Amino acid sequence: METFFSFLAKRVDDCSSLLCVGLDPHPSELAAPSTEAARTFCLRIIKATAPYAAAFKPNAAFFENYGAPGWTVLKEVISAVQEESRRLGSMIPVILDAKRGDIASTAEAYARSAYEQLGAHAITLSPYLGRDSIDPFLAFKEKGVFLLCKTSNPGAGDIQDIPIALDPKPARKPSTANKRRFSSVPNRASMYLYEHVAFLAQEWNTGNNIGLVVGATHPEALQRVRAAAPDLWFLVPGVGTQGGDLETTLRAGLRADGKGLLINVSRGISRAADPAAAAAEMRDAIINIQYALKH
Amino acid sequence: METFFSFLAKRVDDCSSLLCVGLDPHPSELAAPSTEAARTFCLRIIKATAPYAAAFKPNAAFFENYGAPGWTVLKEVISAVQEESRRLGSMIPVILDAKRGDIASTAEAYARSAYEQLGAHAITLSPYLGRDSIDPFLAFKEKGVFLLCKTSNPGAGDIQDIPIALDPKPARKPSTANKRRFSSVPNRASMYLYEHVAFLAQEWNTGNNIGLVVGATHPEALQRVRAAAPDLWFLVPGVGTQGGDLETTLRAGLRADGKGLLINVSRGISRAADPAAAAAEMRDAIINIQYALKH
Repeated sequence: METFFSFLAKRVDDCSSLLCVGLDPHPSELAAPSTEAARTFCLRIIKATAPYAAAFKPNAAFFENYGAPGWTVLKEVISAVQEESRRLGSMIPVILDAKRGDIASTAEAYARSAYEQLGAHAITLSPYLGRDSIDPFLAFKEKGVFLLCKTSNPGAGDIQDIPIALDPKPARKPSTANKRRFSSVPNRASMYLYEHVAFLAQEWNTGNNIGLVVGATHPEALQRVRAAAPDLWFLVPGVGTQGGDLETTLRAGLRADGKGLLINVSRGISRAADPAAAAAEMRDAIINIQYALKH
Repeated sequence: METFFSFLAKRVDDCSSLLCVGLDPHPSELAAPSTEAARTFCLRIIKATAPYAAAFKPNAAFFENYGAPGWTVLKEVISAVQEESRRLGSMIPVILDAKRGDIASTAEAYARSAYEQLGAHAITLSPYLGRDSIDPFLAFKEKGVFLLCKTSNPGAGDIQDIPIALDPKPARKPSTANKRRFSSVPNRASMYLYEHVAFLAQEWNTGNNIGLVVGATHPEALQRVRAAAPDLWFLVPGVGTQGGDLETTLRAGLRADGKGLLINVSRGISRAADPAAAAAEMRDAIINIQYALKH
C-alpha cells in the first residue's frame, strides 16, 4: 500500500524538488479580498509553479475567513492541484495547513473533513491533546499528518521551549548510512518540550504517516529535532520572508539521505513578478546546496 | 466596555446557571447524517434548553465535516442562539469550540472567521504556538478565548502532564475573600506543563478575556489549575458521558466566589428523552452543590 510519505518521496524524486508551495490568499495579497480573488490567486500560483512543487500547502484560515463560500473555493483549489497533476502526469500531494487538534470523537470529524470532504492528502495537527487526538487521522492509512513541533513564529518559545524534567534521551542514530551531519548534534543535557514531541512522533510513526512542522527561524532547534527524529519528513516554514536562511536550514535539517525536508515558500513566490521563475529558482537553490553538502 | 467575561458573568447571574450546552451534531446523533439533520438537531436543543443555558458551545468539527454547507448551518445555529436570546430578553454567549492555533498573521484570519463571519463571542484555542498566536484574538477586546489547558480525553497526559524543569511557582492566592477550598491545594514540588499554561493564562489575562479548558475527568488536575489561575473562568467538558463527577468537579474547580466554572454537557442533554428537563436538572444539581459548598 502507498502511504503518504511514499507518495511524497515519489513526487520528490520525480521533480527533483523539496519545494512546498504555500497557497495563502491572505487578504493583504489580494487587490480586493473576495472568494473570487482568492480562487484566482491560488489557481495562478498552481498553474505557474506545479512543475517545481513537491507539494502544495493551502492554509485553511485564508479560506475559512470567507465562511461557507471560502470552503467551496478551498475544495476547488485542492481539485485544481489534482487536475494540474494529471496534466503533468505526476501526482502532487496537497497538505492542508489547518493545525487542528481535538479529542478523539471530534478528531474523526476533522479527519473526514480534510481527507474526504476536501480531498487533501495530509494535514497539519497540534500535538497538545496527545496520541488519541492523532489516531483518528492515522486511521486513514494512505494519508499523512505533520505534527506541530517547533514553529516559526516569535512566540513559539512560550510553550515549545520549556525545559522538561524527563531524562534526556540520547540522540537517535539515523537509520541510513550517511551520518556526517550528526557529529554536530547539540549537547542534550537538557531537553525541551519540542524535542519530546519529536521523540514521540518518531515513536508513533509505525505506519510511515507522521511528519513534523519545524520552523526555519531556529536552526539549532531544527538540528535538535533532526537528532530526535532522524527518519521523519519535516515541513519547514519560515525561509525567506520570516528570516530563515536556506543553506543553514538544509544543513541543520536534511536527513542523512539528503532528503526529509519540505521547504515551504508562500509570499516569496506569490509576490514575485514571475512566480514560475521564483519557484524554479528556489528548487535550483535547494538542489545546489544538497549537492554541495553531499560532496 | 463590556468584555466577554463580564457578558458571561451577567448571563450567569441572570439565569442562575453554570451550564454550558454543547451543540455537537455528531453523525452518530443523527438518524441520517446531513446538514439539514444537523441544523434540526441544534435548533431543537437551543429551543429546549436556552432558559437554563449560561452559554452554548457549538463544535466546529461537526459542521466542517459537511464542507461549505456545514459552515452555512454553523452560522445559522449561532444566529438561532441570538434570536432565542432576544426572545428570552437575556443574551446568551456562544463559545465556538474550534481549538484553532496558528502563527500571528494566520491567527488573525481565524479570529475574523469566528467573530466576524460566524458571530461567535468566544473561541477555544490551543496554547502550543505561544502568546503571539493568541494576541490577534485578544485584539477583539469584547470577545473571549478559552485556552486548552488540561483536556478530558485519555491521551491528554502525553504532552500536558509532562513535568517541567522550571521552578514551581507557589499557588496563587485567590483575589476574593473566601479561601476555604484552597487549603487543600496539592503539593507543588513539581509542576506539570498544563499548570504552566494556567500560570501563563492568568498572567496574560489583563483584558478580562482569557479562560481555560479544563476537563472534569482529572479532579486533582482541576484543583491544581485553580490554584495556578484563581481568577479565571474554566470551560469544563467531561462531566457525565466521559465519567467526570459533578460534585467532585465543582469542589475542585469553583472559584472562591462560587462561580468560575462552565460545566459543559452535550450528549447528556441531546440524548435525553426531554432535553429541557435534562438541562433544568443539571442547572439545579449545580445550584444545590454550590449552595452546600457555601454552607
